[in-house]
Amino acid sequence: MGLKRRTLLAAGVGAATGAGLSAPALAQGAPETRWRLACAYPKSLDNLYGACEAVARIVAEASEGRFQIQVQAPGEPVPAEGVIDAVSAGTVEMGYGPASLGASRDPTFALASAMPFGLNARGQNAWWHQGGAADVFAEVFARNGVACLPCGNTGAQMGGWFRREIKSAADLNGLKIRIDGLGAQVLAKFGAVPQTVAGPDIYGALDSKALDAAEWIGPYDDERLGLQKVAPIYHYPGFWEGGSVLHLWIGAERWKALPKPYQAMLRAAAAQAGADVQAKYDARNPAALRRLVAGGAQLRPFPQEVMETALKHANDVYAKLAEKSPDFRRAYDALRTFRNEEYLWFQVAEYTYDNFMIRARARG
Amino acid sequence: MGLKRRTLLAAGVGAATGAGLSAPALAQGAPETRWRLACAYPKSLDNLYGACEAVARIVAEASEGRFQIQVQAPGEPVPAEGVIDAVSAGTVEMGYGPASLGASRDPTFALASAMPFGLNARGQNAWWHQGGAADVFAEVFARNGVACLPCGNTGAQMGGWFRREIKSAADLNGLKIRIDGLGAQVLAKFGAVPQTVAGPDIYGALDSKALDAAEWIGPYDDERLGLQKVAPIYHYPGFWEGGSVLHLWIGAERWKALPKPYQAMLRAAAAQAGADVQAKYDARNPAALRRLVAGGAQLRPFPQEVMETALKHANDVYAKLAEKSPDFRRAYDALRTFRNEEYLWFQVAEYTYDNFMIRARARG
Repeated sequence: MGLKRRTLLAAGVGAATGAGLSAPALAQGAPETRWRLACAYPKSLDNLYGACEAVARIVAEASEGRFQIQVQAPGEPVPAEGVIDAVSAGTVEMGYGPASLGASRDPTFALASAMPFGLNARGQNAWWHQGGAADVFAEVFARNGVACLPCGNTGAQMGGWFRREIKSAADLNGLKIRIDGLGAQVLAKFGAVPQTVAGPDIYGALDSKALDAAEWIGPYDDERLGLQKVAPIYHYPGFWEGGSVLHLWIGAERWKALPKPYQAMLRAAAAQAGADVQAKYDARNPAALRRLVAGGAQLRPFPQEVMETALKHANDVYAKLAEKSPDFRRAYDALRTFRNEEYLWFQVAEYTYDNFMIRARARG
Repeated sequence: MGLKRRTLLAAGVGAATGAGLSAPALAQGAPETRWRLACAYPKSLDNLYGACEAVARIVAEASEGRFQIQVQAPGEPVPAEGVIDAVSAGTVEMGYGPASLGASRDPTFALASAMPFGLNARGQNAWWHQGGAADVFAEVFARNGVACLPCGNTGAQMGGWFRREIKSAADLNGLKIRIDGLGAQVLAKFGAVPQTVAGPDIYGALDSKALDAAEWIGPYDDERLGLQKVAPIYHYPGFWEGGSVLHLWIGAERWKALPKPYQAMLRAAAAQAGADVQAKYDARNPAALRRLVAGGAQLRPFPQEVMETALKHANDVYAKLAEKSPDFRRAYDALRTFRNEEYLWFQVAEYTYDNFMIRARARG
C-alpha cells in the first residue's frame, strides 16, 4: 500500500498535538494527519459530544498518535447549525451531527437521519448498510461536497414536554412548540406553531408561556433541562424521530485523499463510537425516566387519533417534497419500500418477543 | 507509544501472508502479526462467517497489512464446539462463536450470549458496554484464559420448525427437538427430548421422523436448510434467544501482549463487523421470510400458555444454576436487574412507536 508521506496539518491547530502523545520511537508508514471535528452538540450532551471524543481517541490509538482529531464544541467557531456547511466549505475537515442539518441545502438530507414515521434504529441501520441507502444518498452528499459515516442513534425519542395534555388532534391547533425539520412541517398541518429555541432557552420560554411545549431527545438528555418543572406532561413517542441517526461528516475531497488505513480506522471508529451512543442511551434512559417521574413528569402516550392524523399529514408533506425534488422522491420511495419489508419481519419474532417480555415485566 | 518490533508469527501459517498485500514502502512502527481465527460457523452461514472475514479485512486495511488474520472454517482443524477451548489452549489465537460454546466449562458463559427470556439485541449490547456486564464476565473469562469482544447479534430468533403445530404446553411433552444449551434445559422441563443434530443433518432427521422439530436461527439462515418441506410449522419467537450475541475470542495472554494500536483496531473492527451482522439479518430476513411462506412455511406464534410456562421453567433452571455457581448467580442477578430497567424504558417510546408502525403497516 506504501503511502506517500504527507502532512494534512491544518493551519492553526499545531497545538492540538497534545500532551501524552509522545512521538513514535520508530519511523512510521502513514503520514501525520491533524483534523478538526466540529461537533453540533455542546459538552453538556455528553453522550453525543462523547462520541466525537471516542472517535478521536480510537483513531489516535490505532494510528499510534499519527492521526489526530481535535473536537470542537459549537461556536468554537462553527455554529451547531453550520456543521455540514463548514465541512462542505473546508473550514473544518470533519463535523458531527444529524443529516437533517443539511436539509436547508437539500430536503433529501433529512431522510438519512430520521423522518416522521420512518424506520426504527435497527431498521435505519440495516437500510443504510445493507439496504442500499448509502448509495441513494451518496450522490446528493457528493454534490454538496461531503462524505458521511453514520455514528450513533438515539433510538425512539420522546414526544417532549407539554404544559397541558394533548387529548386530541384539536389540542395541537395553535400550540407553540419547539420543534424543527420535517416534524415541524407535520405539526404545522395540525395548526401548531413550530418555534426555534436553543436548548438552554427552552426552560425560560416554557416558564414564561412563550412556549406551550418543547421536544428535545429522551430522558437522559431531557433531564438536564429540568422541563418537568414547567411542562410536566411527557408525551411519547416522538413519532418524528423513531430512531434518529447521528453522522460524521467529512469533506468529500479530504475523504478521498485520506490514506486508506486512516479511512479504515475512521469507518471502524464510527461504528464503535456509534454503537456506544445507542448503548449509553439504552443503559441510562431507564434511570433518568424514573427520576423524571419521581420529580413530577407525567407520562402520556399521544392519542391514537393524533398518531393517525400525523401519519396522514406526514405522507402529505412527503408527497409535496417528492414533487419538487427527484432526489427526495428516490430516497423516500426506497425508504418506504424498505420500511414495509422491515416491519413485516420485526412484527414476527422481534416484536412478539418484546411484547411478551414487557407484559411479563408488568406482571412482575 | 514506541512499540518494540516483534513478530507473533504462528508456526505453519507463513503462507497466510497472502497475495495482494505488497510490503509497505516505508519502515513501519508496529510489528508484523499473523493470527488464525477459528470460526464456529461454516462458510454457508455467510453472514456469520463473513463477520470473521470482515474483521480480518478491516485490521489488515488499518494496519497496512501488518496485522493479518487468517479465518478458518470449522474442522480446519478446530471443530465448531471447540472454538473457545482452542483459543484457551493457544491452539489458535482467535475464535468466533457465541459465548454459550463455553457453557460446558462454566454455565456463566451462556449468559453473555443469550438466555431464555433474556435481553433483546439492543438491551444485551447496552448491558455489555454500559451496564457493567463486561466486568461481570471478565473474571470468569480470564479464569478460562480468554478475552472477549462482542461482534454481532442475530436479533430475536425464530422458534424453529415443527412437523405439527404446538397448541399447548402438553404438545411439547415427548417432542424430539433439536436444541441445545439453556433452551434445551427449559424445553426438557416440558417433557421434550432435546437432541444434538448438526445443521446439515436436520433435514434428514425431520424427514425420517427421528426429529419432531428443530430450532436453527432465523429466516435468512433457515432458508438454506429447506426445513419448510418436512416441518412446515414455523413457530415464533425463539424465546430462548431473544437477541443472541456472537463473540470474538482471544487468548487472554495474547490479548495482553497485542500492541495497543492493534487492540484498538480489533475492538473497532469487532464493532463494525458486528453492526453489519445485525444489519444483514435485518435487511435479508424479510425477503427470506416471504420466500419461506411462499414455499409452504406456516407462521404460528407459540401459545401464551407455552410462553408463560417456559418463563416459569426458565426461572427454575436459573435458580438451580445459581445455587451451584456464585459466578452464575452474580451474572444472572445483574442481567435480571438490567432487564427489568431496560424493558421499563423500551415499553415507553420504543415499543409504542414500533407498535404503531406495525399496525399502520397492517392497515396499509
